[in-house]
Amino acid sequence: MPRWEVGSEERLKEAAMELFEEQGFENTSTIQIAGLAGVTNRTFFRYFFDKPEVLFSDSERLRAALVEGIRSAPSTLTPLETVAHALAEFDWRSLGSRESQRRRRAVIDSSPGLLERDLIKQHTMAQDFVEALLERGVDADIARLATGVGICVFTTAYDQWIHADADIALSEISESVRATLATIVGPS
Amino acid sequence: MPRWEVGSEERLKEAAMELFEEQGFENTSTIQIAGLAGVTNRTFFRYFFDKPEVLFSDSERLRAALVEGIRSAPSTLTPLETVAHALAEFDWRSLGSRESQRRRRAVIDSSPGLLERDLIKQHTMAQDFVEALLERGVDADIARLATGVGICVFTTAYDQWIHADADIALSEISESVRATLATIVGPS
Repeated sequence: MPRWEVGSEERLKEAAMELFEEQGFENTSTIQIAGLAGVTNRTFFRYFFDKPEVLFSDSERLRAALVEGIRSAPSTLTPLETVAHALAEFDWRSLGSRESQRRRRAVIDSSPGLLERDLIKQHTMAQDFVEALLERGVDADIARLATGVGICVFTTAYDQWIHADADIALSEISESVRATLATIVGPS
Repeated sequence: MPRWEVGSEERLKEAAMELFEEQGFENTSTIQIAGLAGVTNRTFFRYFFDKPEVLFSDSERLRAALVEGIRSAPSTLTPLETVAHALAEFDWRSLGSRESQRRRRAVIDSSPGLLERDLIKQHTMAQDFVEALLERGVDADIARLATGVGICVFTTAYDQWIHADADIALSEISESVRATLATIVGPS
């Protein structure tokens, strides 16, 4: 790799975030992103399949880690606990500071094109969770419900975490959302 | 409206379903759909904004009815019951026979382009549910959780309903999925 390309991927990601925030995702071209990062447009496409992917470069690693978390969860856990456990075990700070994750989330929510990409990735991930639960012998309907509910609890907690004023642990927020869920669903 | 156009919308929808099933969504053009329905391509675009929309023509009516169902639900219901109530009140058979809904679902699941459209519509609908719950004075996190969980329960029940051998009532299946949910979440 020529020396001028060292750190290109990170620079492209930062340049993209800045431009998406300034002028919107739809109004930003990969040529502009590459320009701001000081590389060619061709280099952009060496790192990213298309424009949205510059914001989703961690999603394959995330997906694989979470599915592995479900596979390797203690067999004593209930299906919902298994999903919660996998989500809690992942090091969310490895995706960047809370501020950068908050900025990324705001950019995604502001663009239909990015939101679509995000939704399809979440959907694929949920299907993989269901598969991993089935492999553990969980009944199909229970696997679907536990995945749906588990992801719903997590995204509520994650959203609170990235927007929290103080630096509270995500696991703590998740616990509190799970307690809220129990009150919503009520006794069986 | 000239006489040859009477029933065009229905014919276009049926033609699209047939072609999507036979040769796939991506391999089917609006010209082919219009051709099979015996109308011009221009007529296709008078009824539908683009190719995917031919499968989503009921979604605005559905969205409006469900949001109205949340608004008008008895105030004694809990947030989750409110969502369940709105989904249970809707006449799902008005979207077509169970068989046609099962066929539609299979076509959507087989195409990334259609799945994306479906996910974005579900997401918008969920946001509208949250808004409607907020208007009823529900706390924001509880509104999000109740919407997420309520939709998750419903889609599990809906999927069982369209695939059931016998013609069981959707409301009955929903009740049973809600009971399963309670066992998954456990006592508060």
